[in-house]
Amino acid sequence: MKLILDLDTGIDDAFALAYALASPEVELIAVTCTYGNVAVDDAVRNTRALLDLFGRPDVPVYAGPSPAGWEVAEVSAFIHGAHGLGEVSLPAPAGGSAGDAVDFLVAAVREHEDLVIVPTGPSTSIAAALEDEYFASHARLVMMGGALTVPGNVRPWAEANVWQDPEATDRVFRQAADVTMIGLDVTLRTLLTHSEVARWRAVGTRAGEVLAELAEYYIRAYETTAPHLGGCGLHDPLAVAVALDPSLVTCLSLPMQVDLAEETRGRTIGDLSRVAPQVKVAVGVDAEKFLGAFMERLTRLAANT
Amino acid sequence: MKLILDLDTGIDDAFALAYALASPEVELIAVTCTYGNVAVDDAVRNTRALLDLFGRPDVPVYAGPSPAGWEVAEVSAFIHGAHGLGEVSLPAPAGGSAGDAVDFLVAAVREHEDLVIVPTGPSTSIAAALEDEYFASHARLVMMGGALTVPGNVRPWAEANVWQDPEATDRVFRQAADVTMIGLDVTLRTLLTHSEVARWRAVGTRAGEVLAELAEYYIRAYETTAPHLGGCGLHDPLAVAVALDPSLVTCLSLPMQVDLAEETRGRTIGDLSRVAPQVKVAVGVDAEKFLGAFMERLTRLAANT
Repeated sequence: MKLILDLDTGIDDAFALAYALASPEVELIAVTCTYGNVAVDDAVRNTRALLDLFGRPDVPVYAGPSPAGWEVAEVSAFIHGAHGLGEVSLPAPAGGSAGDAVDFLVAAVREHEDLVIVPTGPSTSIAAALEDEYFASHARLVMMGGALTVPGNVRPWAEANVWQDPEATDRVFRQAADVTMIGLDVTLRTLLTHSEVARWRAVGTRAGEVLAELAEYYIRAYETTAPHLGGCGLHDPLAVAVALDPSLVTCLSLPMQVDLAEETRGRTIGDLSRVAPQVKVAVGVDAEKFLGAFMERLTRLAANT
Repeated sequence: MKLILDLDTGIDDAFALAYALASPEVELIAVTCTYGNVAVDDAVRNTRALLDLFGRPDVPVYAGPSPAGWEVAEVSAFIHGAHGLGEVSLPAPAGGSAGDAVDFLVAAVREHEDLVIVPTGPSTSIAAALEDEYFASHARLVMMGGALTVPGNVRPWAEANVWQDPEATDRVFRQAADVTMIGLDVTLRTLLTHSEVARWRAVGTRAGEVLAELAEYYIRAYETTAPHLGGCGLHDPLAVAVALDPSLVTCLSLPMQVDLAEETRGRTIGDLSRVAPQVKVAVGVDAEKFLGAFMERLTRLAANT
């Protein structure tokens, strides 16, 4: 199968990228970049630098739209570092954006039948692509975002990606024919801890060292923001893993909406007033199987690059 | 099996009572009354009057505690009528409360192994009974209340029963070992419409007439408060039906909490900070099968009394 990642390249986005590159069953045809954990420019630079690190400079990266005046939230900078990759320093990449992310997404869905798109940031670019009817009816989306059965992480009712652009995610839920929502319901049950990170450091390559440093930065942030969890949530890589193997999660199918009114703005919740389209909302996860695949794949990638 | 209903006897509570009385597989050993749709005194009087109507004056009714200064909410009076049974006028019942609801609940769980308790109002009495450890570890509760995957009905995030006493329902979720939550997730998918009501009127008995009048009052209220549904939600009788036949619903098991802070006070939501006890939250319902059983049973009850 073919894959496009739509990343706002912070730390767990880096893990999502690594997971995709480490998976032989998938061809990563491009990364589109959005804002969220970082600004679009930083997401493009981080993605290009990581592709260089992992020996895949051939993968094109496209830049998506960004709201006027948008700035990185304080909590994002705390969790991912000011530029998205903690304190890791990577060589400046040679290339930049290959073009417009939305145009590329729309064209790619027309071109490839076996394509899955995994958005791991705000839904802004995807919502823009949905203005194309073919995209709306044919795109297969496995998105990281939202929270149905558990509280949000930036408001008691709202998850960070949806919070950035509630109207965009609402449009995704109402207009896209094939959406799987990988929200906090499952991503906060898939945790990475210091003991796993040690395996990457032991590999002895620069890639292994970078993965370990990213994870340690991220775990430290979680020790402050969510100490009860005992690790860091593998939000974005879980979405990639489910795109490759839907059996990792159990889903509840229901028509979804995003609340737009102030009181619960950004909440992802069922909509009793309509019956379609139904979003497949992941509510259960085989955390052990996912974490096993995650460690096996990323460790292999670290060893081979 | 044996059954206790804990009712705040408004219209759908009356249907829940009728469903229990019409079910040959269940022995209704008592009704305990709480406040909510109406005050406790009205709930006791309505319940006694309905038991007389349905030819079951032998079933005892117990009165539960009521918060000081509590008054019926405007929306409750609109949906259920000022005294809970719409505009239906029933003869004043001979008896009153047989004693204290909480004491009775605690004793009943000790006495009967095959007992299920179905609370359809605020959790106040049940939370008081939970101070007894045997009750907490042995009571089987199938409660109508809450909303996990859909919005609330008195606030965007809160369902009416839980809203009345969030601390009490939170205690139920944290301390009771065996809880099934029948919330708006499923009760707003089980709707009664005018066409079903006509069958009761056609029976030609006083009981049939009363059921029809109650339903028509309730449907009219829903036409104002929730016109998109196209009928009235059979909240409380669905909880009774699930107590008798758990296969009517599909459940998601997870540790639940009720939010107590102002912003989302009264929200029922998963709690990622603990693993037990797990509440079985109904998220899917065989509406056709339930509605079939509901109509068959209540029509038979109406014909035989």
